Amino acid sequence: MHALGVDIGGTKIAAGVVDETGAILAQVRRPTDPDDASNIDRAIAEAYTELAGSYEIGAVGLAAAGFCSPDRTSVLFSPNIEAWRGYPLAERVATLVGGGMRVVVENDANAAGWAEYRFGVGRGTTDMLMLTVGTGLGGAAVIDGRLVRGAYGVATEVGHMRMVPDGRFCGCGHAGCWEQYASGSALVADARAAVVAYPDRGARLLDLVDGRAEDLRGPHVTAAAFEGDPLAIELFASLGRWLGEGAASVAAFCDPQVIAIGGGVSAAGDVLLEPARAGFRAQLSAGGRRPEARLEIAELGNEAGIVGAADLARL
Amino acid sequence: MHALGVDIGGTKIAAGVVDETGAILAQVRRPTDPDDASNIDRAIAEAYTELAGSYEIGAVGLAAAGFCSPDRTSVLFSPNIEAWRGYPLAERVATLVGGGMRVVVENDANAAGWAEYRFGVGRGTTDMLMLTVGTGLGGAAVIDGRLVRGAYGVATEVGHMRMVPDGRFCGCGHAGCWEQYASGSALVADARAAVVAYPDRGARLLDLVDGRAEDLRGPHVTAAAFEGDPLAIELFASLGRWLGEGAASVAAFCDPQVIAIGGGVSAAGDVLLEPARAGFRAQLSAGGRRPEARLEIAELGNEAGIVGAADLARL
Amino acid sequence: MHALGVDIGGTKIAAGVVDETGAILAQVRRPTDPDDASNIDRAIAEAYTELAGSYEIGAVGLAAAGFCSPDRTSVLFSPNIEAWRGYPLAERVATLVGGGMRVVVENDANAAGWAEYRFGVGRGTTDMLMLTVGTGLGGAAVIDGRLVRGAYGVATEVGHMRMVPDGRFCGCGHAGCWEQYASGSALVADARAAVVAYPDRGARLLDLVDGRAEDLRGPHVTAAAFEGDPLAIELFASLGRWLGEGAASVAAFCDPQVIAIGGGVSAAGDVLLEPARAGFRAQLSAGGRRPEARLEIAELGNEAGIVGAADLARL
Amino acid sequence: MHALGVDIGGTKIAAGVVDETGAILAQVRRPTDPDDASNIDRAIAEAYTELAGSYEIGAVGLAAAGFCSPDRTSVLFSPNIEAWRGYPLAERVATLVGGGMRVVVENDANAAGWAEYRFGVGRGTTDMLMLTVGTGLGGAAVIDGRLVRGAYGVATEVGHMRMVPDGRFCGCGHAGCWEQYASGSALVADARAAVVAYPDRGARLLDLVDGRAEDLRGPHVTAAAFEGDPLAIELFASLGRWLGEGAASVAAFCDPQVIAIGGGVSAAGDVLLEPARAGFRAQLSAGGRRPEARLEIAELGNEAGIVGAADLARL
Repeated sequence: MHALGVDIGGTKIAAGVVDETGAILAQVRRPTDPDDASNIDRAIAEAYTELAGSYEIGAVGLAAAGFCSPDRTSVLFSPNIEAWRGYPLAERVATLVGGGMRVVVENDANAAGWAEYRFGVGRGTTDMLMLTVGTGLGGAAVIDGRLVRGAYGVATEVGHMRMVPDGRFCGCGHAGCWEQYASGSALVADARAAVVAYPDRGARLLDLVDGRAEDLRGPHVTAAAFEGDPLAIELFASLGRWLGEGAASVAAFCDPQVIAIGGGVSAAGDVLLEPARAGFRAQLSAGGRRPEARLEIAELGNEAGIVGAADLARL
Repeated sequence: MHALGVDIGGTKIAAGVVDETGAILAQVRRPTDPDDASNIDRAIAEAYTELAGSYEIGAVGLAAAGFCSPDRTSVLFSPNIEAWRGYPLAERVATLVGGGMRVVVENDANAAGWAEYRFGVGRGTTDMLMLTVGTGLGGAAVIDGRLVRGAYGVATEVGHMRMVPDGRFCGCGHAGCWEQYASGSALVADARAAVVAYPDRGARLLDLVDGRAEDLRGPHVTAAAFEGDPLAIELFASLGRWLGEGAASVAAFCDPQVIAIGGGVSAAGDVLLEPARAGFRAQLSAGGRRPEARLEIAELGNEAGIVGAADLARL
Repeated sequence: MHALGVDIGGTKIAAGVVDETGAILAQVRRPTDPDDASNIDRAIAEAYTELAGSYEIGAVGLAAAGFCSPDRTSVLFSPNIEAWRGYPLAERVATLVGGGMRVVVENDANAAGWAEYRFGVGRGTTDMLMLTVGTGLGGAAVIDGRLVRGAYGVATEVGHMRMVPDGRFCGCGHAGCWEQYASGSALVADARAAVVAYPDRGARLLDLVDGRAEDLRGPHVTAAAFEGDPLAIELFASLGRWLGEGAASVAAFCDPQVIAIGGGVSAAGDVLLEPARAGFRAQLSAGGRRPEARLEIAELGNEAGIVGAADLARL
Repeated sequence: MHALGVDIGGTKIAAGVVDETGAILAQVRRPTDPDDASNIDRAIAEAYTELAGSYEIGAVGLAAAGFCSPDRTSVLFSPNIEAWRGYPLAERVATLVGGGMRVVVENDANAAGWAEYRFGVGRGTTDMLMLTVGTGLGGAAVIDGRLVRGAYGVATEVGHMRMVPDGRFCGCGHAGCWEQYASGSALVADARAAVVAYPDRGARLLDLVDGRAEDLRGPHVTAAAFEGDPLAIELFASLGRWLGEGAASVAAFCDPQVIAIGGGVSAAGDVLLEPARAGFRAQLSAGGRRPEARLEIAELGNEAGIVGAADLARL
């Protein structure tokens, strides 16, 4: 059965028809207005109508950035779309689409993680942890073949697990959250701090932004690391170490077979992955007396949300 | 259907016939020799034979302290019983018992947690976290109605999640493990350190051990706390705070409805529970924008292992 | 002998004639341009000329925000006044003033600390530590009756002693610096984080800024604390605890008789001082087997820089 | 003028005649009983008498392990010699020696640090910090040419400055003290933990103790590091990093020209020193905008206490 997967972003939606192997057969995009929830509903319905002309669609999965109800009908809270407070998104879309179509809502990180589990580095396993290293640090977990959603739809908020008591401030109001040490934002903050503290070692990074530390962004650090700049490599090593050490704590809880590292920062590849593996091995409890999870860069890219949402809609 | 639950300790086993409501109908105990695995097998079989004379037993669940294979047949590693390295415990017991009896092996903390989930503070929920505060810190988790065992049978080793980078040494070879801050051992270590650092404030505790700090044990701290000794109360408050703050990190991962606090240290009751609740609320991510788990003292006592192992054997 | 003390700020100078008891007999202020070093020199000379008409002045002490050469002639580096990089301030002012006047340059925090030592809570002691809790955390120390300037004039930068490995970012490019936990900026950052994390508990603070957390400033927290607002009191308690615990580490190094807490934040008084004392006692090494320093709110206010600079010029 | 320096250990004294260049002209040793203070007094007097037969001695300096009164007459508290609680050691020895001899008491770490300042890596400077890495972590400081003793004789207890909140337990009753991360004891504890956590990487260290981790001592780690064992080198690198990072915090306070690293662990040389230098540079505040202290291995060995005590007796 084909299913439609829809990844709902802040200013656009991307919808794709996904077959049972995880392949996207056709795709459309539409702009949306984050301040108008019914506008988003309609955009989804239009995308459905357009694609349903050419493909038979048996179910619709919506990937939303926010807390989703565990019954997969509503968005409880979204940081980006104000109107989504207990919003019955599945029902609204189903009504517009008509025909009794099955529509489910999933958290976007969970949808992406599910896609990775089914069709990416997690295929063939039963237990997987996904860490999405983007601006923040998101996550998803599959335990014994089932996606972890939590009693209230608020599970795998790994970025807010505390790594350092009294550590770096987090926008969530707490301190020491994992994403303050292992995310694109952390990479940028570390890079800016490093060039202030050690201008000599930061010369290459400062070159890339004409001397303005405040203009440093993640891609500058990635570019410098690919060139072999020692400070940039060290910055990724630090991020990787925090990622791996934190993953060891999470693995003590859920004992996965594979840990997928995705998100934009994972484009750095080995310069991130090797330190992450070293940090994981160094901190994993009972290392040597248990099988150890593999850490791997995620295989699916930006379309993981579409693929995962579609696949979850079939279940 | 009645099932037999067997809790296998270092020097004895306790076996009980458990009905479908979690009630123990009859119970026997037998001494065992931890250096002789077949001796343990026989003791279990004898306990079965004794109880099977009066009760019809449909399945046998064995609660073992150690990593258990996820297919529930073997003990992979046990810190106490040397001979249990990949030991096919279920098969050995099934052979001795005969009659094609169904026998399963479960980790003892998981068995106790399952009992609490089915018949204790977790009943009626789908998602529960159990924290067992004994000498160390153990745990169990139920997610969406299913016990979390891990891909390799090594899940919910919560005591070895890292709370403090470069923190207190742990016997596992790492540092900063949660159980070094939230366990009976931590309570005793804290108490001894406190009476050294602040002899005046430690006067009552020192009284209880004739001035010998090295003789302080957990029950002394509990007794002093019940008397109202400020230092003892503060020691429990610190333990409770670490317990609650750590639980907030775990809840960010698994989003439970209830967090059960069990183990010997939980006998302290509110003097532990209230600081744990405060620490949990203070650290829970997205507090106020999500339903929050309840923290409660576990209801079942020492027999939780028997009850849980029996109940899991029926599944 | 009377001496002139001059406190050089970013946009103005304040000069006063100070007698040997530390009393300010007369005072003048003049605006200055931080981008023009010679303009500052002239403003100082004019203030001298004005006051020298009525008072006999035997020496001039200049308190400058920056690293000062240990021979008291130059400003090595100033965060506010760009032109001061190895600037021979004493000589420039002496030339303008004429008559072979003795002119010395001192770090402003050191000057204020010295005033407190000679005429404030430190009088009668030989060893004092001063902690100035303003926007940042500054300090000064007197050891065996002598001001600690350091081999290179860069001593008592206490705000950049590390309190928390991998802790909060500091503008200096490092992380975990003491001033990120014990300063006015830390108070504001903590307050904003707290109202985000716990809006209910932050209701009073939010009221004071019409609900805009980003508008919170130190005086709001002080005002709320004086009203008895529990969150504001707790914020000061946290700041005080960090101040006292850090002071215990410093006292392990320099073993002072009194620790003076000054700066704008110290206006909070006991709500800050009592937690600081508790934190100090709790962390002081060998507490109970040594005399302990007293923690006190500094007695001299904004004019401490003038008084201390003048007094140091006489030495 | 020649002076006698006496280093008083737990079970013996070592006394030497020291000239004004710091050379030891003659030396004697005598066993002592730590439980009998007058026995120690007599042993010192006998050593004096023996050496005074051949050398003219103008003053006597006694180096004692403990807190010494700032007027240099008494031992206030000693961890090893119970009878020394406010003990008037200088007067007792002066009485036995007779002839109105000048006798002073100094803390042993201070005496050793002073020797290093006058005749070792600190010669020619005015500001020096000494870190003595032995079983624990001791220290001494010279600021502007004067030894820092503290108002109550309890200064430069650097080993008990807190480096990690909620960190490793210390025998002093607190947690996170510097000496728990940078001392011989820390090295041994780290080594034992490492071979437990990573038996493969610990193979060489385990070889040296026939597989018994509990038998590991510092010299094993040093020997393995000299052989090139990667784990041993890493253990020294960690110790060195903590030493250097902590030194950066202390340098923010006292701004020294040289930091001498002594004590038994410093025999490791570069394997310790290079990571210490790297840690220092990485953490020093305002690095690049200030002259930086040199870190060097101390030059004087076990006799530094004798030399320093003698030299201080002349002042």
